[in-house]
Amino acid sequence: MNWFDEGALYAQISTFLREDLGRGDITSQAIIARNTRARGRFVAREKMIVAGLEAAEEVFLTLDPQQQLEAFVSDGEAVEAGKVIARTSGFADVLIAGERVALNLIQRLSGVATITSQFVQAVAGTQAQIIDTRETTPGMRLLERYAVVLGGGRNSRFGLDDGVVITTNHAAVSGGIAACVKNAREQVGNFHKIQAQVGNEAEAKEAASNGADGLLLENLEPEAVERLCAVAREIAPAITVECSGNGLTLENVRAYAEAGATLIGISTSNSCVRAVGVSFQLQPF
Amino acid sequence: MNWFDEGALYAQISTFLREDLGRGDITSQAIIARNTRARGRFVAREKMIVAGLEAAEEVFLTLDPQQQLEAFVSDGEAVEAGKVIARTSGFADVLIAGERVALNLIQRLSGVATITSQFVQAVAGTQAQIIDTRETTPGMRLLERYAVVLGGGRNSRFGLDDGVVITTNHAAVSGGIAACVKNAREQVGNFHKIQAQVGNEAEAKEAASNGADGLLLENLEPEAVERLCAVAREIAPAITVECSGNGLTLENVRAYAEAGATLIGISTSNSCVRAVGVSFQLQPF
Amino acid sequence: MNWFDEGALYAQISTFLREDLGRGDITSQAIIARNTRARGRFVAREKMIVAGLEAAEEVFLTLDPQQQLEAFVSDGEAVEAGKVIARTSGFADVLIAGERVALNLIQRLSGVATITSQFVQAVAGTQAQIIDTRETTPGMRLLERYAVVLGGGRNSRFGLDDGVVITTNHAAVSGGIAACVKNAREQVGNFHKIQAQVGNEAEAKEAASNGADGLLLENLEPEAVERLCAVAREIAPAITVECSGNGLTLENVRAYAEAGATLIGISTSNSCVRAVGVSFQLQPF
Amino acid sequence: MNWFDEGALYAQISTFLREDLGRGDITSQAIIARNTRARGRFVAREKMIVAGLEAAEEVFLTLDPQQQLEAFVSDGEAVEAGKVIARTSGFADVLIAGERVALNLIQRLSGVATITSQFVQAVAGTQAQIIDTRETTPGMRLLERYAVVLGGGRNSRFGLDDGVVITTNHAAVSGGIAACVKNAREQVGNFHKIQAQVGNEAEAKEAASNGADGLLLENLEPEAVERLCAVAREIAPAITVECSGNGLTLENVRAYAEAGATLIGISTSNSCVRAVGVSFQLQPF
Amino acid sequence: MNWFDEGALYAQISTFLREDLGRGDITSQAIIARNTRARGRFVAREKMIVAGLEAAEEVFLTLDPQQQLEAFVSDGEAVEAGKVIARTSGFADVLIAGERVALNLIQRLSGVATITSQFVQAVAGTQAQIIDTRETTPGMRLLERYAVVLGGGRNSRFGLDDGVVITTNHAAVSGGIAACVKNAREQVGNFHKIQAQVGNEAEAKEAASNGADGLLLENLEPEAVERLCAVAREIAPAITVECSGNGLTLENVRAYAEAGATLIGISTSNSCVRAVGVSFQLQPF
Amino acid sequence: MNWFDEGALYAQISTFLREDLGRGDITSQAIIARNTRARGRFVAREKMIVAGLEAAEEVFLTLDPQQQLEAFVSDGEAVEAGKVIARTSGFADVLIAGERVALNLIQRLSGVATITSQFVQAVAGTQAQIIDTRETTPGMRLLERYAVVLGGGRNSRFGLDDGVVITTNHAAVSGGIAACVKNAREQVGNFHKIQAQVGNEAEAKEAASNGADGLLLENLEPEAVERLCAVAREIAPAITVECSGNGLTLENVRAYAEAGATLIGISTSNSCVRAVGVSFQLQPF
Repeated sequence: MNWFDEGALYAQISTFLREDLGRGDITSQAIIARNTRARGRFVAREKMIVAGLEAAEEVFLTLDPQQQLEAFVSDGEAVEAGKVIARTSGFADVLIAGERVALNLIQRLSGVATITSQFVQAVAGTQAQIIDTRETTPGMRLLERYAVVLGGGRNSRFGLDDGVVITTNHAAVSGGIAACVKNAREQVGNFHKIQAQVGNEAEAKEAASNGADGLLLENLEPEAVERLCAVAREIAPAITVECSGNGLTLENVRAYAEAGATLIGISTSNSCVRAVGVSFQLQPF
Repeated sequence: MNWFDEGALYAQISTFLREDLGRGDITSQAIIARNTRARGRFVAREKMIVAGLEAAEEVFLTLDPQQQLEAFVSDGEAVEAGKVIARTSGFADVLIAGERVALNLIQRLSGVATITSQFVQAVAGTQAQIIDTRETTPGMRLLERYAVVLGGGRNSRFGLDDGVVITTNHAAVSGGIAACVKNAREQVGNFHKIQAQVGNEAEAKEAASNGADGLLLENLEPEAVERLCAVAREIAPAITVECSGNGLTLENVRAYAEAGATLIGISTSNSCVRAVGVSFQLQPF
Repeated sequence: MNWFDEGALYAQISTFLREDLGRGDITSQAIIARNTRARGRFVAREKMIVAGLEAAEEVFLTLDPQQQLEAFVSDGEAVEAGKVIARTSGFADVLIAGERVALNLIQRLSGVATITSQFVQAVAGTQAQIIDTRETTPGMRLLERYAVVLGGGRNSRFGLDDGVVITTNHAAVSGGIAACVKNAREQVGNFHKIQAQVGNEAEAKEAASNGADGLLLENLEPEAVERLCAVAREIAPAITVECSGNGLTLENVRAYAEAGATLIGISTSNSCVRAVGVSFQLQPF
Repeated sequence: MNWFDEGALYAQISTFLREDLGRGDITSQAIIARNTRARGRFVAREKMIVAGLEAAEEVFLTLDPQQQLEAFVSDGEAVEAGKVIARTSGFADVLIAGERVALNLIQRLSGVATITSQFVQAVAGTQAQIIDTRETTPGMRLLERYAVVLGGGRNSRFGLDDGVVITTNHAAVSGGIAACVKNAREQVGNFHKIQAQVGNEAEAKEAASNGADGLLLENLEPEAVERLCAVAREIAPAITVECSGNGLTLENVRAYAEAGATLIGISTSNSCVRAVGVSFQLQPF
Repeated sequence: MNWFDEGALYAQISTFLREDLGRGDITSQAIIARNTRARGRFVAREKMIVAGLEAAEEVFLTLDPQQQLEAFVSDGEAVEAGKVIARTSGFADVLIAGERVALNLIQRLSGVATITSQFVQAVAGTQAQIIDTRETTPGMRLLERYAVVLGGGRNSRFGLDDGVVITTNHAAVSGGIAACVKNAREQVGNFHKIQAQVGNEAEAKEAASNGADGLLLENLEPEAVERLCAVAREIAPAITVECSGNGLTLENVRAYAEAGATLIGISTSNSCVRAVGVSFQLQPF
Repeated sequence: MNWFDEGALYAQISTFLREDLGRGDITSQAIIARNTRARGRFVAREKMIVAGLEAAEEVFLTLDPQQQLEAFVSDGEAVEAGKVIARTSGFADVLIAGERVALNLIQRLSGVATITSQFVQAVAGTQAQIIDTRETTPGMRLLERYAVVLGGGRNSRFGLDDGVVITTNHAAVSGGIAACVKNAREQVGNFHKIQAQVGNEAEAKEAASNGADGLLLENLEPEAVERLCAVAREIAPAITVECSGNGLTLENVRAYAEAGATLIGISTSNSCVRAVGVSFQLQPF
């Protein structure tokens, strides 16, 4: 992540720490002697693509600017079960205060990177790219997008403000797909391309013939995707086609790619993702 | 949720909306005519315990204080696939601006409530209670705790500041379990009970004989749980025993309950939980 | 402005009021009797396009939610000197507390709307559109963009995050224009078009032949603009051409339009803009 | 600026950067290779009093605490066109991210300092001092006051909370000038002097004879100023007289000074001020 | 308090509530049935000048905008022990959540008002006014100043930014009293008077003869005050004289007034003030 | 204080400084030459337990990160009148800007530590511990709790969220003491003990026999305390008993300890506490 994301990351990590710490760790305050130092290590408990080590380091730095995390792998690397992925040393109460938030982040983000990587492999050799969607865990979009890239995927628009997508709901209230595409073309100025969600061949034609730069197909079967691609590309050969939806799985994703999808959007908050196991073990000096 | 949680909830929802909206929805700004009104409805796409409708209502209220959500079921109710769970009407651009955040919340929280409910049923008739842990999605703890209660579970401590748990990591840096329990008893004052994580019979004896009010057993097999319960309760008959860990599943949870666990802690950020499917369908007036 | 901008507007107005009020108006506290009511009116002191009345109303509403502003013209209307453009009544100390901030906003924004309107008239009948640029008064971009629209102009990208423009400075550090355009096309995904700043015919060719959607010409003479347009459009007939720079004036802007510019970007923080005169007159009831 | 202003400055610069950057510079993210370094220089494009270099440095420091700006002139110095006023080197994406905000600040503040300096020269040799007023750009008062001092002017009250001025609007709702001056004298305690706005000889007498420490004359002609000064000073020889208003120009300001004004207040948000031209040129290492 | 103070008051009350409530009242959450309503009353346990009822009302309104407080006396009135000063009804958990903060405020502020009133009576009939100083409880200055006014006192400067006082410490580092007074006169502009702290006759002369508007005498005996008043007023008959310091008590304050002090500053954070007793009694409906 | 409290402390100190400084110290800005350096020392004016030096250092560090405070005694040490407790050197304007806030903190907190220490001595040799209560100065709880520990006392619960106390007001609206204790036992989970306020023997029995871990006796006479202790301990020998209330004084506190109280709660905002005298003396280099 670059400097700007770091600013946002810092604010977020602070929020996560406040959530877990409240007024402070009353257990450590009661039983850990002042200035006790310790060292800890993070151990992968299963095979995974590691993600979240930068975030975990930020957790400890937020608690103590002197605290450092020494990573033995970089975010994005694949590791086997048992691998010590990072170690850190410092005040014992700081290590314990940050442990849970750091683990929660590493486990979830590594889970996202790992599943993304599996999707990427599943479509290897096709023209399709795996991308994220706006179906992310609330409050975690920045981090989950980052994990998708670590897993080999690409980022789609961040939110509603940096990309134009005309959905079925837009079309329902604003005069249908053709009108929406035309108006968007007229209004959004010279910086934005236009993607339109379509559900059948008629809509695909409507979008393509009115100047849409891309199509969005949600919850369709691969055969339907193939038909709509054909119809749209007859009109606009360079049009992009994104598939997404709850039905997409590691098992069937290649069928979508082979049906013509150029982009395949995966949710990072739903059933595809499960947190992987990582443990944190503390030792005295 | 009561008045105080509502304050925290409002702040959180605002953060989630800013994450998705940034500088505003450029698609709607381009193509939806000013003051266009519409109505929308949320439809369950599978069987689930509904959770997150109050949060979803807050999403729309944050965008427009006049916007109301009419719920057809209460948070905590079970519904079948196809059920219209809520509807709302208002400005079309407001409905679309809130759609994704509302769906992300309902889908995830209903997923948590649903899985919790399944765990609760799995231990029905035993002395065991299903509780949450600190293994929650960063930033979502308040909401996930709420969903656990809706699913029939109980809340454990919120964070490090409102409950005393001596973990293996504490013991490693502060002189072992016996010393930690004694010091904690001395220091934490008259308001807190003390739970100690133990991994074998010797530690269980140590904790129980030094006055721990409860034991925490992580990642142990049911047989081990049974043995440690026996050892500890011989010393302190009323001691509580909490089991948790990645190995806990719907399939084996009853074995833990029957082994003597009084509390079973489930993670709301890990593989146990998957978001359930809910859709939002907009119509013009 | 729509609901989302209102949220941002409210935060900004609060900042502006704190700037002027600090710990409160010590003069009014000393000499105005509690609950004194008064009425005030805003009077145009010269010919202008009015802008900022919504912002001015927000100023008073921030101080007192009961306070209303009755506008006699809408933002965007032209008025002559002497016109009473709005009136308001309420607590005298509130009116005086908001007076200066309200006037500063109306005067500046009306100045922006008025000069924009003059530029729009100057290019009437040509293909050129007047747009804003990122050369705005720090902290006032939202409001100045709004005033540009009221004056008949169009908005360009809001900031660095919602539009791709490859400037001379980008090209200098990233391998030249051709490489930049190609890389941007590859990296920015499916939502963004690409504008490239060019300074001579060779660069214009380079940008156009590598797939730029638009050109940006800064501080060039109209003849140069004409030549570059010709060169680029031979390669890419639909390419857009934006002209901007300090040299653009009401006197020479038409020459740029006639030279082929499709977009003409004006600064809202520089010499083109002067605040227009508006006064606020208070009367007792 | 001293330490306290720096705190306020930092907060403001952050706001300005967020305004321009939003979620980050998508162009640089797409095309600038990680860790690319570059150097840039700020060049005056016309004659000016330089102001805003400290603020510009803060812009880059906010983005990257390692980033330094090497200034070749100090804020407040006069330079000719073509002068390189500062240079900086660092990460190319940071330089480009800060470029526009830095330029917008330097151009506007140098414009304020330059015009102030011209006003100061215009009244050289008289008793009059050039001061700022509350007619500033919303959100920029701290910086514009600073620029006025760099141009040789003096600061007036910051806002409504640190100086007592009885305006015509106060008098209208609180029993006239005499009553207002008397009440203010009674109420504002032992720390504040009292200035009263007057519009004719009768009011000037009223203010002076009731103990006003200063008069404020707005939008009057020099002859009227002369008459009111005479009337007031007959009663209170040491009374100060401030002139301000839209009619004040570089051409007529000396007439006001010669008419007896001790203070001449200039607006920093109106037609007197125009941003001066400064460019930023980037080069690779 | 007027509208502006209310804004600041609201922010402060929220801080006080967060301090006491943290994540919410776990006792009420456990044992009070949802929607239980109750009524409560505040009873004076001793004779006092009441202060803080507006603040207490704000406490309850912050927790629940529907909650009202019905006051039977106004802030500033004297009551006897046993008097029911206010009552309120609403949700029982809200009443209990606000109880402690409300009591802490009423008890402390009534204590300040009561002692101020006693000081005011002690100097009745002399020229002296009782004023507050900057020796206030950190974070409570706004409220304590308000209580001083309720007790019949007057407010001095709020802080370092709205009044000029040259202290002994200033003089020590800036060339002595005479130089400080002269420089201050020159620099602080036309809005501020100047008070100088002096400790003996020589300093009093120095201050008076260089134009100080007031003297500040700290920790002097009444006889010394009398001598310094005489010396200073020979030079500047209208000069004000403020006495303050730890030695000031209800017993000796009149001696200071009779020695010539025009202002007597009392600390609201020190030994003079003690919180008075008030209780809050809840009843079910 | 540990790292976490330091974060909270920093935020608080900033608030206190903003309260006193507003837009900055206009006196120092007017008369202290830029970069003037000075040294200052804090001198105890009476016998006291010192508290607040860490907070005072934070005051200066907040203003200038280079500024250090050299303490000659540690927080918690006893000193005699005349003792120089700390010194500091740095920019004169920074020293003066922080002086008042630093003094207000040291004086108040040393007052709290001193009185606490006197209470601790008064019960020396008994089983009773001196603890704080929620009757603290609004906004100062963290600091006052810290001062209580420095004086030899212990901390009670921080606020409503980290300890369960059933008060008379709870009992009044929730079915009486027995029901409240039972429900609390059932609901608050495995982390919290339960204290119940009782006023007579019947209530004491009710609480003890339903499982309360502790009793709270407010505003009772020592004899009543003795009787209630006896009644309760017959049922629950290990039950704790806390006494508190306005009637507790240095004179009678031992009687409460001898009557059987295990905890004696003192208010840090009421008449028991008076700020002690400390002065700050500045010298030039």
